Amino acid sequence: MKAYIEQHKDRFLKELFELLRIPSVSSQEEHKGDMLVCAQKLAEYLLAAGADSARVYETAGHPVVYGEKTIDKSLPTILVYGHYDVQPVDPVGLWKSRPFEPEIRDGAIYARGADDDKGQLFMHIKAFEYLVREGKIRHNIKFILEGEEEIGSPSLSGWAKEHKDLLACDVILVSDTTMISDKVPSINCGMRGLAYVEAAVTGPDKDLHSGHYGGAVNNPINALCSMIDSLIDKDGKITVKGFYDDVIELSPEERAMFARAPFDIEEYKHSIGINDVKGEKGYSTLERTGIRPSLDVNGIWGGYTGEGAKTVIPSSAHAKISMRLVPNQEWHKITELFEKHFVSIAPPGVKVKVTPLHGGNGFLMPVSSRAYKAASKALEQVYGVEPVPSRGGGSIPVLADLQYILGANPLLMGFGLERDTIHSPNESYLLSQFYKGMEAISLFYAYY
Amino acid sequence: MKAYIEQHKDRFLKELFELLRIPSVSSQEEHKGDMLVCAQKLAEYLLAAGADSARVYETAGHPVVYGEKTIDKSLPTILVYGHYDVQPVDPVGLWKSRPFEPEIRDGAIYARGADDDKGQLFMHIKAFEYLVREGKIRHNIKFILEGEEEIGSPSLSGWAKEHKDLLACDVILVSDTTMISDKVPSINCGMRGLAYVEAAVTGPDKDLHSGHYGGAVNNPINALCSMIDSLIDKDGKITVKGFYDDVIELSPEERAMFARAPFDIEEYKHSIGINDVKGEKGYSTLERTGIRPSLDVNGIWGGYTGEGAKTVIPSSAHAKISMRLVPNQEWHKITELFEKHFVSIAPPGVKVKVTPLHGGNGFLMPVSSRAYKAASKALEQVYGVEPVPSRGGGSIPVLADLQYILGANPLLMGFGLERDTIHSPNESYLLSQFYKGMEAISLFYAYY
Repeated sequence: MKAYIEQHKDRFLKELFELLRIPSVSSQEEHKGDMLVCAQKLAEYLLAAGADSARVYETAGHPVVYGEKTIDKSLPTILVYGHYDVQPVDPVGLWKSRPFEPEIRDGAIYARGADDDKGQLFMHIKAFEYLVREGKIRHNIKFILEGEEEIGSPSLSGWAKEHKDLLACDVILVSDTTMISDKVPSINCGMRGLAYVEAAVTGPDKDLHSGHYGGAVNNPINALCSMIDSLIDKDGKITVKGFYDDVIELSPEERAMFARAPFDIEEYKHSIGINDVKGEKGYSTLERTGIRPSLDVNGIWGGYTGEGAKTVIPSSAHAKISMRLVPNQEWHKITELFEKHFVSIAPPGVKVKVTPLHGGNGFLMPVSSRAYKAASKALEQVYGVEPVPSRGGGSIPVLADLQYILGANPLLMGFGLERDTIHSPNESYLLSQFYKGMEAISLFYAYY
Repeated sequence: MKAYIEQHKDRFLKELFELLRIPSVSSQEEHKGDMLVCAQKLAEYLLAAGADSARVYETAGHPVVYGEKTIDKSLPTILVYGHYDVQPVDPVGLWKSRPFEPEIRDGAIYARGADDDKGQLFMHIKAFEYLVREGKIRHNIKFILEGEEEIGSPSLSGWAKEHKDLLACDVILVSDTTMISDKVPSINCGMRGLAYVEAAVTGPDKDLHSGHYGGAVNNPINALCSMIDSLIDKDGKITVKGFYDDVIELSPEERAMFARAPFDIEEYKHSIGINDVKGEKGYSTLERTGIRPSLDVNGIWGGYTGEGAKTVIPSSAHAKISMRLVPNQEWHKITELFEKHFVSIAPPGVKVKVTPLHGGNGFLMPVSSRAYKAASKALEQVYGVEPVPSRGGGSIPVLADLQYILGANPLLMGFGLERDTIHSPNESYLLSQFYKGMEAISLFYAYY
């Protein structure tokens, strides 16, 4: 595809810039109109690239774009997933150029969405265009582009259930993640799932004076702290009963393969300003975030938190607690186990309530799969190095849902880099990654 | 004084309500102006009641009001202490009527400060007015009213040192506490001290994504919870090294005397809506709050506390932690012990900072003292029952300072009741206690 890119790169950039100029911020009501404009533009692009059909579907939230080209129903079908919504741009004062006025500086495109995910999804549209126009298309190709990824995809799963037959596919192809570096390509072959709850511990039915009652009453903050403390033991294991039942241990061979990823612990600690790491005994830092589940308190509050001192024993204390899950852990089940466990460890004098907030399952793309192998060959050809399999610590719950609904595994072939600072000011995307990504995607189809 | 109250009660309430309408929240900068307004109003009230002089003194913080009437320097002098500042009103949504719009419901005044301490100090002004107007005054009476009690009285001790001669007295008379019930009057003959600190636990130098880092990094909230949990052992003992070194154990006789106080554990639990009490092994509930030290978290915060879910590992977590001390425990020493201990238990990957906020020592008023006996007779006459000596769980650290500076013991003749829920929403003060309190105070002067 290299020659095709060389020939059309000016047009590619012009088209991408038009997409980046649309301020499609899904979380902000004022941009509701922009979401539709962006969705319509993508449907146009799909048709122009060679789709048989492309359509904007309304949902309860922002619209979904669906387009496809069917060659022969007996051939494999690839479903490309992407999202056209972007994060808010604040603090806007920290941007060097305007977030919705794309600009090329030092070999990178600067704009909100340049990487996440407009830049990355656009590569798929252009690789598709190349395959169609050059007569190289040998699969049925479908596109599902949503406008709610940055707000947790509230509509897509429901929509996908209703349109299950339309979306039927053999593999879900996604570029919405990073690779280790542009010298060390990697393929994300698994993401963690998530179970996120809010817990409330209630003691006395009103706030009490800590002088009059202190020492005689179970303080809900102290109680909550003790309960939280007990959730992780001294070996870094989560104590929720049954939590590890469905966790699959990796084989020594698999662990060795993942350990190929370059990693410098000193650099890691320095990058986040800590003097020591901490986690489950017996696992490396990359394993702790990649292949092992974890539990974190994401927020805590209770009592007096203003300026100065207030001598109060509060009636209640609260925490937001989330667990990252590994593939094969089912988030509804884990949520239930947590709830049962947390209620069971409530000490005398307090009541505990756990409210599930949301969650999703993790998923795997086995390195032995046809899709992984095709992606690996494609990346090796473009980058000159065999890619490293990696596991993402984060979650894309909607992909786990799509996997479940469609029965097809997602393949995460991401071309973002840490330097792109997605979600932050001055988001960017390297032109070299943009071009190499398109080439690698076209080769994926060749090898699949 | 009964007849005098009957005759003037409407005016008394009108004047008190004017005082209660001033939102004199000492901990909130926005109320700085209200503090001065409140102080000026009190100086006016003292003059109108019959003081020779009354004046508002500026301090580095909120003003101090001082007023006096000198009859004869050879007569005993009583210094009345009170405070006109109040606690914040949040959560304001739980108030049934507006906190600074006093209202009478079911025989009680509802307002922030209705009991603590505007309602109680106002009784002293009116008892004083009665003695002056009816020609019954037989002591020199001084008033010291501060505006910083709820924030730990940072200015009064210094001011009192500078004005030691002005404040010279034989006894410090205070109504800023509760009695056991309106059927069982009690005199507080000792208060606990206080050491109040704020602790910050910092991990990574920025907020992190809990998916990318969860499991590998010591989460400051989890760390803070574990550290807090470790502060109290399974027997309810505080684990801070050296904490109990200066605690004096009471004799079995003393414990028996205090145990005369009627106490119904079921009623206690019911009154605050808990199903069980909790505290130091080997001590009763009343002992746990009266003669034993305690430790409570008064506030905690960190991470995401808004609506819904945010998958963050916060950079830091914070808590306000206070210890109630018994007489003979010195609060500076305890604060230092706490700081040293808390820093020493910081786990790897986080840094800990402890900031002392305020504190004070506890103190005792012997039951054999002239002041105690006069108060006992006064209360017996009004309530028809001999009062029980009790020990207050709360702290008025400034009184320990005043005792030290002036060489006079404080007598705590409090008329609050548990039902008043001071520091909480819907603070109230029973009208019957308001009237009986005035009468008892006037009789105290008669018997002293």
